[in-house]
Amino acid sequence: MFPSAKPLEFWFDFGSNYSYLSMMRIEALAAQHGIPVALKPFLLGPIFKSFGWDSSPFVLQKLKGEYTWRDMERQAPKYGLPWKRPTAFPRRALLPLRVAVLGADQPWAWDFCKRIMQANFVDDREIDDPAIVAAILASLGLPAADLIASAQSDATKAALRLQSEQAAQRGIFGAPTYFIGDEMFWGNDRLDDAIALAHLMQKTAD
Amino acid sequence: MFPSAKPLEFWFDFGSNYSYLSMMRIEALAAQHGIPVALKPFLLGPIFKSFGWDSSPFVLQKLKGEYTWRDMERQAPKYGLPWKRPTAFPRRALLPLRVAVLGADQPWAWDFCKRIMQANFVDDREIDDPAIVAAILASLGLPAADLIASAQSDATKAALRLQSEQAAQRGIFGAPTYFIGDEMFWGNDRLDDAIALAHLMQKTAD
Repeated sequence: MFPSAKPLEFWFDFGSNYSYLSMMRIEALAAQHGIPVALKPFLLGPIFKSFGWDSSPFVLQKLKGEYTWRDMERQAPKYGLPWKRPTAFPRRALLPLRVAVLGADQPWAWDFCKRIMQANFVDDREIDDPAIVAAILASLGLPAADLIASAQSDATKAALRLQSEQAAQRGIFGAPTYFIGDEMFWGNDRLDDAIALAHLMQKTAD
Repeated sequence: MFPSAKPLEFWFDFGSNYSYLSMMRIEALAAQHGIPVALKPFLLGPIFKSFGWDSSPFVLQKLKGEYTWRDMERQAPKYGLPWKRPTAFPRRALLPLRVAVLGADQPWAWDFCKRIMQANFVDDREIDDPAIVAAILASLGLPAADLIASAQSDATKAALRLQSEQAAQRGIFGAPTYFIGDEMFWGNDRLDDAIALAHLMQKTAD
């Protein structure tokens, strides 16, 4: 429909609470302006490790962490989204991220990604558990066992690793992060600005 | 006009670039809803020091810092504000913060605070220089020498120190921060939410 439109790249980790807010909002917002969105799952943990951090800043910085949970209680309802503070944070999401890399261009990708986010930030489930991931895939009518096997293949492991390295190379330091071309926006609070720029560039290109 | 309205507390440091965006926006936004704003100048440096940081995270975290300057180039025009990246960051602002504490309830406080912010983030001046502070006070028709002497009195020094300690006790970890009662909002991105809550509480109280 919009062959000239630059895709809005949406870089996220399923363990990131502000990525949850964007995951639930971005598809509808982008569709309003006819902007294609490229799903870019990546591992945030290695980026934090490269800064010398062994966990999320929301864990390492106690005051900021406490504030973040209060902020989420206010932000989620502002966007009409359910929210439950997960009992484990940040949750490891290696398997669902591999599935997301595998399926990023497939029609089921959005439903899968939203269901994983909901499992983490609404249902408080262990999203790296193969049984949870399989149940979500099956609920979408997908061949769960086959997809999980493919997700754990060397090729898919390498693909997620590569994408995470690209995130670091492009200067990503947190999630969610958006790119339109080389223009980077960080955080759910910048989603509207990113959409606005993508819309502007689309009109210019048309 | 609104004796029942809870004031919106605006905690800021003149060295903070996101405090600049809020300083230039908050007075008009709050006035639209008849919300009184209490100016709460404080020293952010000691709070960062208490976390083991010897500077701003925008200096200590290289990638986040680079992003912040690009973000400011986009955010300032979004709000119709001028912006020039300061050649020194974060600037020490001890003297102007003391003047701001001294004058927080005076009719000239807003003009003074905005002029100091402009000096730092538009005109790229050394805002802790007594000559700069004096020139700004004089331009507002105020007795500059007297006010600077009062700002450097033991009483005013103690008042800024106390307010900075209160900031730490209330869980402030960055600037700008807003309070409505005990409800804390962090960052220029939360100014609209803070105003909305103050407005809601005002209507409830009326």
